[in-house]
Amino acid sequence: MSRLASETGPGAPLHGEDAIIQEHLAPLAAGYPGALGLKDDCATITPTPGHDIVLKTDPIASSIHFLPDDPPADIGWKALAVNVSDLAGKGALPRAYLMALSFPEAPTRGWMGAFVSGLAEAQGAFGMHLIGGDTDRRPGPVTISITVLGEVPTGRMVLRGAARPGDVLFVTGVLGQAALGLSLLKEPLLGARWGLDEAAVQAAVNKYRRPQPRLALRDALRCYASAAMDLSDGLAKDLGRMCRASGTGATVSMEALPREVVSKAAVSADPSRWIDVLAGGDDYEVLVAVRPHDAAAFEASANAAGAVAAEPFSVARIGEVTAGEAVTFLDQVGNPFALPRTGWDHF
Amino acid sequence: MSRLASETGPGAPLHGEDAIIQEHLAPLAAGYPGALGLKDDCATITPTPGHDIVLKTDPIASSIHFLPDDPPADIGWKALAVNVSDLAGKGALPRAYLMALSFPEAPTRGWMGAFVSGLAEAQGAFGMHLIGGDTDRRPGPVTISITVLGEVPTGRMVLRGAARPGDVLFVTGVLGQAALGLSLLKEPLLGARWGLDEAAVQAAVNKYRRPQPRLALRDALRCYASAAMDLSDGLAKDLGRMCRASGTGATVSMEALPREVVSKAAVSADPSRWIDVLAGGDDYEVLVAVRPHDAAAFEASANAAGAVAAEPFSVARIGEVTAGEAVTFLDQVGNPFALPRTGWDHF
Repeated sequence: MSRLASETGPGAPLHGEDAIIQEHLAPLAAGYPGALGLKDDCATITPTPGHDIVLKTDPIASSIHFLPDDPPADIGWKALAVNVSDLAGKGALPRAYLMALSFPEAPTRGWMGAFVSGLAEAQGAFGMHLIGGDTDRRPGPVTISITVLGEVPTGRMVLRGAARPGDVLFVTGVLGQAALGLSLLKEPLLGARWGLDEAAVQAAVNKYRRPQPRLALRDALRCYASAAMDLSDGLAKDLGRMCRASGTGATVSMEALPREVVSKAAVSADPSRWIDVLAGGDDYEVLVAVRPHDAAAFEASANAAGAVAAEPFSVARIGEVTAGEAVTFLDQVGNPFALPRTGWDHF
Repeated sequence: MSRLASETGPGAPLHGEDAIIQEHLAPLAAGYPGALGLKDDCATITPTPGHDIVLKTDPIASSIHFLPDDPPADIGWKALAVNVSDLAGKGALPRAYLMALSFPEAPTRGWMGAFVSGLAEAQGAFGMHLIGGDTDRRPGPVTISITVLGEVPTGRMVLRGAARPGDVLFVTGVLGQAALGLSLLKEPLLGARWGLDEAAVQAAVNKYRRPQPRLALRDALRCYASAAMDLSDGLAKDLGRMCRASGTGATVSMEALPREVVSKAAVSADPSRWIDVLAGGDDYEVLVAVRPHDAAAFEASANAAGAVAAEPFSVARIGEVTAGEAVTFLDQVGNPFALPRTGWDHF
């Protein structure tokens, strides 16, 4: 964030936590009584009777989860979307969020205004409000730590660890596009090398910057899923987690993985790019295991809901849950594919 | 965190998020069904019927909210205590917390083990469990971002902004001791200059490192408080916030502020040390406004509960809420005291 000369223009730094909170953040809390206008120490939510609160916290930091020169509105969108994606994978209805912001130096009015506009768009799209948080200054990257709260009928959160051998595996949307969007941002010449037009490049960049939590999947998950989770660290790693938690293995057909023009072009130009599809991360799609006798009903329900979502999507059958522990990806001729790495790990 | 040679000893770095979560953090979730052993993407809590969920998030970072060489067990205690202190100030019963950890490099087993032991002590003392979180690596200071959840009967959270002119102001415990404890850590010669013995110095350091949320105040707050909040940024700043939110002023007698041997010695040796008492921060006591006709009943109820708390405390009358906007501190001869600053602000 560069500092410009004016003290009131968009380049002026914001002085004081109270200025940041009351000028920029309080409007995100308007209309939610329990937020108390962000003027109290704590917030409240009144749970819907007969429902559990579903919670998740997943901070994002500059240069790690987003690029420092990503548009601030996109950073705001993404900070909320990556958390809401977890709620989407659990069949939960979003209700509210808390946000702790940390800056190495005071943000400018212009940056905060754009960041907040992206958050406002996202919370409107997801049906929730900011209800509390904290702002401080510390060295290191700009960090946005959001905690989201959603609701499910009591005891009905869709679990990660309840898949059974024989279950059919589905994913929403497409895989790999976001990871390739990040590669295209980092290496601008790749697009031409892969023969992509500008619209395809922009779509991939947009998938990286503006993940779309698959909230429309909620009823299909609650009715038919035996297990589900969102995909944030790549299919290979997250499917491995579902299998470990369930005490199962899985077999996935790489041919069946849903892909769009960018990943098709990238893999065709450079087969090592399969790693982006299988383990690139940042997909924010939902992985679902469904009992075989429910698979057709799930597919129909999910596709019907996805077709009328604000960002339409469909689901694809990608494989099945197996006995044992092995998670196997089969290539086009049916041979196991050897993954050089399985996904993102911070340590 | 220094790295030693051994790969399995206390100096060995922990590799992998899963190792940190399953080896160290999962035991903090044991016994809470909705935590799902920290093995799912989200956690759930089942609200008590007829209750609101009360929420707060307040991250702490090395060199800002604690010292890098503070004992890791104390850092763990403090990270949870500063958040629970907000619940205590609202009359809420703690239930659960989420925690996002961020490290510039992998922590050692020894550091994590001690950190977790402090958290375990704290959550046991406060009656709550870890139910979810996140761990990642990023540049900058070690940061612990905790979100706490408590409960109050629906609509009964004690507010900051409901004080009225004429209300009697109380605070729990003592003021200034923690801020002076930090000064004593930073300038070890101060203790001798102020004529303090080692026990007094240690008590002040302990107050800084191990704040004690005044949870025993809950019933007295719910029955009698018109407004309350915890004191984290210093009495002057936090009382100013209560007054602004309430549309009132306040008058406080400095003589009446509860102090112990360290702040008495410091102020007596150096009157400019009043700033630590009024605006030093880190007190984690509770400021309460009570209607005059309830003041005696509040005082009796709070003192009875404080006397049998694990860390006993009492409450002191320090002044009253006034009409207008002025927040005035009166010195020993009844003159207004001019504060050079009103409290901690990050920007």
